[in-house]
Amino acid sequence: MARKEKPWGGRFKGGTDREVEAFTASIAFDRRLCRHDIEGSIAHARMLARQGILTAAEEKAIVAGLRGIRKDFERGALVFADADEDVHMAVEKELIRRIGEAGAKLHTGRSRNDQVALDLRLYLREEIGHILEAIEGLKDALENLAGKEIDTVLPGYTHLQRAQPILLAHYLLAYREMLDRDESRFRECRVRVNVMPLGAGALAGTGIPIDRRCTAEILDFPEMTRNSLDAVSDRDFAAEFLFDCALLMMHLSRFCEDLILWSTEEFRFIEISDGFTTGSSLMPQKKNPDVAELVRGKTGRIYGHLVAMLTILKGLPMTYNRDLQEDKEPVFDAVDTVRASLSVFTRMLGQITFLRDRMEKAAAGGFSTATDVAEYLVKAGVPFRDAHGIAGRIVAFCLERGKTLEALTLEEYRAFHEAFREDVHEAVTVRRSVGVRDIPGGTSGKAVRKRLREIGRRHGRTKR
Amino acid sequence: MARKEKPWGGRFKGGTDREVEAFTASIAFDRRLCRHDIEGSIAHARMLARQGILTAAEEKAIVAGLRGIRKDFERGALVFADADEDVHMAVEKELIRRIGEAGAKLHTGRSRNDQVALDLRLYLREEIGHILEAIEGLKDALENLAGKEIDTVLPGYTHLQRAQPILLAHYLLAYREMLDRDESRFRECRVRVNVMPLGAGALAGTGIPIDRRCTAEILDFPEMTRNSLDAVSDRDFAAEFLFDCALLMMHLSRFCEDLILWSTEEFRFIEISDGFTTGSSLMPQKKNPDVAELVRGKTGRIYGHLVAMLTILKGLPMTYNRDLQEDKEPVFDAVDTVRASLSVFTRMLGQITFLRDRMEKAAAGGFSTATDVAEYLVKAGVPFRDAHGIAGRIVAFCLERGKTLEALTLEEYRAFHEAFREDVHEAVTVRRSVGVRDIPGGTSGKAVRKRLREIGRRHGRTKR
Amino acid sequence: MARKEKPWGGRFKGGTDREVEAFTASIAFDRRLCRHDIEGSIAHARMLARQGILTAAEEKAIVAGLRGIRKDFERGALVFADADEDVHMAVEKELIRRIGEAGAKLHTGRSRNDQVALDLRLYLREEIGHILEAIEGLKDALENLAGKEIDTVLPGYTHLQRAQPILLAHYLLAYREMLDRDESRFRECRVRVNVMPLGAGALAGTGIPIDRRCTAEILDFPEMTRNSLDAVSDRDFAAEFLFDCALLMMHLSRFCEDLILWSTEEFRFIEISDGFTTGSSLMPQKKNPDVAELVRGKTGRIYGHLVAMLTILKGLPMTYNRDLQEDKEPVFDAVDTVRASLSVFTRMLGQITFLRDRMEKAAAGGFSTATDVAEYLVKAGVPFRDAHGIAGRIVAFCLERGKTLEALTLEEYRAFHEAFREDVHEAVTVRRSVGVRDIPGGTSGKAVRKRLREIGRRHGRTKR
Amino acid sequence: MARKEKPWGGRFKGGTDREVEAFTASIAFDRRLCRHDIEGSIAHARMLARQGILTAAEEKAIVAGLRGIRKDFERGALVFADADEDVHMAVEKELIRRIGEAGAKLHTGRSRNDQVALDLRLYLREEIGHILEAIEGLKDALENLAGKEIDTVLPGYTHLQRAQPILLAHYLLAYREMLDRDESRFRECRVRVNVMPLGAGALAGTGIPIDRRCTAEILDFPEMTRNSLDAVSDRDFAAEFLFDCALLMMHLSRFCEDLILWSTEEFRFIEISDGFTTGSSLMPQKKNPDVAELVRGKTGRIYGHLVAMLTILKGLPMTYNRDLQEDKEPVFDAVDTVRASLSVFTRMLGQITFLRDRMEKAAAGGFSTATDVAEYLVKAGVPFRDAHGIAGRIVAFCLERGKTLEALTLEEYRAFHEAFREDVHEAVTVRRSVGVRDIPGGTSGKAVRKRLREIGRRHGRTKR
Repeated sequence: MARKEKPWGGRFKGGTDREVEAFTASIAFDRRLCRHDIEGSIAHARMLARQGILTAAEEKAIVAGLRGIRKDFERGALVFADADEDVHMAVEKELIRRIGEAGAKLHTGRSRNDQVALDLRLYLREEIGHILEAIEGLKDALENLAGKEIDTVLPGYTHLQRAQPILLAHYLLAYREMLDRDESRFRECRVRVNVMPLGAGALAGTGIPIDRRCTAEILDFPEMTRNSLDAVSDRDFAAEFLFDCALLMMHLSRFCEDLILWSTEEFRFIEISDGFTTGSSLMPQKKNPDVAELVRGKTGRIYGHLVAMLTILKGLPMTYNRDLQEDKEPVFDAVDTVRASLSVFTRMLGQITFLRDRMEKAAAGGFSTATDVAEYLVKAGVPFRDAHGIAGRIVAFCLERGKTLEALTLEEYRAFHEAFREDVHEAVTVRRSVGVRDIPGGTSGKAVRKRLREIGRRHGRTKR
Repeated sequence: MARKEKPWGGRFKGGTDREVEAFTASIAFDRRLCRHDIEGSIAHARMLARQGILTAAEEKAIVAGLRGIRKDFERGALVFADADEDVHMAVEKELIRRIGEAGAKLHTGRSRNDQVALDLRLYLREEIGHILEAIEGLKDALENLAGKEIDTVLPGYTHLQRAQPILLAHYLLAYREMLDRDESRFRECRVRVNVMPLGAGALAGTGIPIDRRCTAEILDFPEMTRNSLDAVSDRDFAAEFLFDCALLMMHLSRFCEDLILWSTEEFRFIEISDGFTTGSSLMPQKKNPDVAELVRGKTGRIYGHLVAMLTILKGLPMTYNRDLQEDKEPVFDAVDTVRASLSVFTRMLGQITFLRDRMEKAAAGGFSTATDVAEYLVKAGVPFRDAHGIAGRIVAFCLERGKTLEALTLEEYRAFHEAFREDVHEAVTVRRSVGVRDIPGGTSGKAVRKRLREIGRRHGRTKR
Repeated sequence: MARKEKPWGGRFKGGTDREVEAFTASIAFDRRLCRHDIEGSIAHARMLARQGILTAAEEKAIVAGLRGIRKDFERGALVFADADEDVHMAVEKELIRRIGEAGAKLHTGRSRNDQVALDLRLYLREEIGHILEAIEGLKDALENLAGKEIDTVLPGYTHLQRAQPILLAHYLLAYREMLDRDESRFRECRVRVNVMPLGAGALAGTGIPIDRRCTAEILDFPEMTRNSLDAVSDRDFAAEFLFDCALLMMHLSRFCEDLILWSTEEFRFIEISDGFTTGSSLMPQKKNPDVAELVRGKTGRIYGHLVAMLTILKGLPMTYNRDLQEDKEPVFDAVDTVRASLSVFTRMLGQITFLRDRMEKAAAGGFSTATDVAEYLVKAGVPFRDAHGIAGRIVAFCLERGKTLEALTLEEYRAFHEAFREDVHEAVTVRRSVGVRDIPGGTSGKAVRKRLREIGRRHGRTKR
Repeated sequence: MARKEKPWGGRFKGGTDREVEAFTASIAFDRRLCRHDIEGSIAHARMLARQGILTAAEEKAIVAGLRGIRKDFERGALVFADADEDVHMAVEKELIRRIGEAGAKLHTGRSRNDQVALDLRLYLREEIGHILEAIEGLKDALENLAGKEIDTVLPGYTHLQRAQPILLAHYLLAYREMLDRDESRFRECRVRVNVMPLGAGALAGTGIPIDRRCTAEILDFPEMTRNSLDAVSDRDFAAEFLFDCALLMMHLSRFCEDLILWSTEEFRFIEISDGFTTGSSLMPQKKNPDVAELVRGKTGRIYGHLVAMLTILKGLPMTYNRDLQEDKEPVFDAVDTVRASLSVFTRMLGQITFLRDRMEKAAAGGFSTATDVAEYLVKAGVPFRDAHGIAGRIVAFCLERGKTLEALTLEEYRAFHEAFREDVHEAVTVRRSVGVRDIPGGTSGKAVRKRLREIGRRHGRTKR
């Protein structure tokens, strides 16, 4: 029996308008799901055979046919056209072209609505895996760097004003904390991605006696969707993935902001190697921290994708609507952007020279140990608010006379409060200031080393 | 000793500009954190006393003073002004006014940066609890309704076209699935909220020998932040909370969209009681589904808050920057909006009359069992693609002759394919169509009842 | 003299890292600006020659060389690689390869920073022109359709409840109003796009005695940028363009929403031709309004691009930062999306059959002329609030007895208020209800016809 | 005759649920429109009287009644409750309470749908006026400052790397350009706001013989809406207003970013007065640029409001839907935020001390005149690309030897290219570098002075 061009063409008289075809086709971008589409179809065919819906011969023909298509696709020998609509149709059509009748049975008990949900879930659980690996890589890089820079001091900033001296290792590990949370979010998202939707059919399930559990097992899904309507209309997992990407990129954007600042002539805390900077077409002296700027800029792109997805979903009636086709490009681009950003950023970290002397010198400037003066008084029994006020007046006194806290004489100190003793000069040094912040999570060398050991142990556990 | 008006006024000569004071003050909105601020301060004072930093008498005075302030605040007897800047300063100032010297010691080993992080975390973990309860309430309502409407059939839609008949109970449980995911996300978010930041100080930790673990225990935090820099600059948890709210509202917006459609004269599947609709100032016949429209509209507000938060965080240098003060209003408004929406929506569900006859009649229209024709043929051995094409041509034939699938004679069926038997007439009825979709997650009465039982059992476990 | 691979390589020792090269290269997407880049370069070369900075021979070589490159580019004979970085470098490098020395002079008095601003402006002013044409096309289609459907009545909705009968022509012209505003916004945006930035150099202007006015004239720019720092860092015009696209798409999304509703079995006000709908892979009876759904969905994509651009720009220090490279892809995709959506939507309008009888019948249902009852009483001197209350009670009376406003006897009417006369039956007909709303902007046939004539006249003026 | 509590209560039997009442009421925020609502109602009453729909006595009573309400509202003597729903109902109810019968006639020929559109338009055109004034104020401040700092040199940055020396006046005027565009956008937006919607009724116009032109004249509207359906569903103007606010805030955010950078110990280009900075509760030495940080942060809030509005509008069916009630809070908050930000920012500008010596010294560092070396060679006939390469190598040479461009001997210069003459030492000075960029829009003192005169003349024209 002759088959119409469009697999859904049964009741249609007029053909599809050429421009409409181009407008509605997703094959230009969803071809990226080809491998997952075939993986899903092979599992579906296997299950159909186990259920006796396909014969063993049909199963064999389908599986072989699909594998051939995958191989041809991977070596670029398969060309898709707009008329193929989407990757599902394109693959099925090609399969029928290759193996005939049996191919026409593949779609039994399935709809494009549950099929695309499956493909996207297969794709995302794989990509989340890659992203998790890349995050691990960046965390490792941070830990290594923290180990190397365990004695480097720099100013800690609030409001971009020098606040208190901190260890560079402590700074680097702060980003590790953020990445830890990113990791948790991606892992939790993956649990919600990792649910098998096939069997939902177009929306209501199927009357064909398929075995969903079997398909889930073949494809290694620990869970199955529990409601067919939800299964075909749910894109929570895609939105959540984009949000997790957004937070990750936000973290990188903050790191980049600091690296860009530190690269300025004014801060000059770091130097990024030539291979990771670029020059100017006009100004020959420039060495621009382009990678950091681009990563920061690409944050906008991911925020945009998240907004796009949320906008698409808002107020959509149940269940599947064609609007959902717009889910893929944001997800694909987010995957590419996040993976590339993580990779290049991680490698850039290894290309940074920290100018330790400049950092330490800066840490000593700007009265960054004034808090230590206040805490000194507190330890001597002065109520905090009063101690804070006195320390503030000492700073004002220094500013007027162009003095530093180290240079103030004991007499000068004692003019502000009699509790000051000789050891105040020690208390206001940068190293001492760092060293006394010795509580869990604090910046003292002891606390940071302890944290590094903790991380190491955890590593041991998870990596073995 | 005289204290300056501003607790940080030590080095400042000029007073703060009046307009600047109003512009920078957060007391107008962060007063909502008053109770949590006091709770945190009491715990902090207790810990300071255990560490010997406060005397027992000072602790007692502070705790009593704070409790008094809380009481006065709760009965509206405490008035704050812009000059108080924020709730932390306002409370501390009031405390010092009430108890003197001891009050000036409360801020020992603490900074507003870690304090505000604590307050927001205390607030959010409480509010997430309320939201989770409200979600549970809505889930219960859905289950009850599903139980009542277990025999009600309506058309399932894709592309807003009638696709296949489904059970109303199945439809309602689809939303339960979404809420389940929302719940998971909120719970996971709460784990990241439920981390004790005090001790991070302004950014570097503190040199005062406080005991963070003790404070964490008093405040019932299972975890402490592990890096002081991260602790004062982290607002991931707020962004994540807003995202979780955004997805939840998106789900409600989709439900509302359907309820609005179903309330139209054209669909007329439901009637919402007078108490949950409003009228027109001009058109006396109108009964508007305002609640559903407003919930749908409020989704925009939450999306906006999410974007606001993400924008604020992007590219911020470490660590605390005053931009972060803008975190609160979006969070507060999201809490109010989500709680009110959940509450009113849940109650509205109980005010809906489902017009079962109209629903079932609609389910029978629009050739919604055409898929059953195709599946009929598939079961008779016709390859799916061919079966699909034949069913499509049968629909086209019916449309031309103004016939329904039920009305077609067996001869007419057989003219399309000889596999048709007498039982095709049974196969194309709505009830049969629903009944055969009997796989896990499908819409058959059996499958839906099974799912309801599963839910009940789970309930049994969690609620007991 | 040998030239390094990178035009900015002078002070660099290490080569660029391969991954960094790929990460930072924009050639993959900014190649779309190739034609505009060459147009700008030709104008720049002409100006340099007029200023005596290039010889006539150099000018000739450059212009010929650039034209050759453009020709090769347009026929696909030019292949760019990541190492070319961006379209500016790629074209210049190719030019030098082709014509040698003279090519190396082209960049005199110019920087990539002002060059890319120029290219993007040239591109956008052209594309805004195309979009304006497409909007005109859609407005024409609406007017034609309004002319044809001048007698078609349908229910006007508020809250998706039938409110009052309106003319379909009136409905269609409402969208024409929105498009009018879109047009104004795009035109105004184009004024801000149409400003010549060359001469801003990297940021500070140039010391080479170029003639900016001359370049502006050659490129037909009515204005020049007035501040070099602003010129290289300004992307307002791109953000504004994206916003204008966002509102346009929002308007289409609302139109699509209605078309999707009207295509449902429940409304069935329209039928879209086969060429502009698609079918289902599973359900043979479906005819899905995919084009309308996709246009609605693509609104999300444009919103996302707007958010991306705004995010990129927020808090960027002056002047040019590499983040700005992220401006292009959102703009390009918005252009493609808007142009395709306008085109396919306009053509779809011609493929819609309006089911006039069903529309009119619906207009008569739902007590949509109840307002006319109230206005009838108002005209008889009853205060509006009272008239509104009475009309409401009449509707309630009808609902209880299953009656319509037309079917109510005069006695029944008079039981509510004695002001009712025989002519109330005429007043509550749909046609009369439409006809009396005869003020400017109202839905009466007279008012709508007048509006159509106004539009026609304006057309006459603008189009001649 | 007794009137029901709700003005639309005619057909309703059950009362409104208390929680629903609170959820749907807008009176808590739209009370801000009270003055505009009354202004619109007075105009409406006047028109009704001229049309003979109200008697002169009724008109008089209504106008006096409304004025009394306005007066009481303004002195805080009017208390609204949730049960009043919205400001329109609240005012009308109060009017009826005060003047009886005549008050019940006010709503003749009007609906809340066109009324709220009117109120919002009246409100926005007024507020846009205030914003335009505030922008003018900031522009004035920039011009004054530019005049004062006409000789101050600082480094111009790209990629936050010192690029070329520029004048501070030039920098300040760059922001004036941005504000100019903001102004244009707000003005153009106001044209679209300034359109009279009354007469659109609920959606279809009115059958009452009102005179829209008359109302428009009384309220000083140059235009009337031309389509009733569009008139009640259009919120373009609100979205456009929010977008214009977003770009304005983005500009301020960039300015703030630079001011924050310049306030750091590392840059130290400026000092902000005590009155416009705040201190730390823990670190007594801090002087934080809070105002700049908050303005930057508040950009997020405005972006959020824009997204909220766009989300609300997307895919809404025609015409009015209750979702639109969510339009007001974002607009109100944007007005407050933008006005406060402009005001405090403008005043802060006057509180900044520019540390001219540090700026100039920085301008001379970082090889910021390397471009001048390249341009020197170009003027001597060296092709730009080669000149650029040579200048780059000279910089590399200096870096290796720790030399500056000024310190290089002529011999050293000539080792790179023989075209160098004695005057190269003059060419690489900061002052000369600035001075030669003397084209329109360039940074030379001459060009900037010319621009200031242009602005002055324009001012003369517009302000007289």
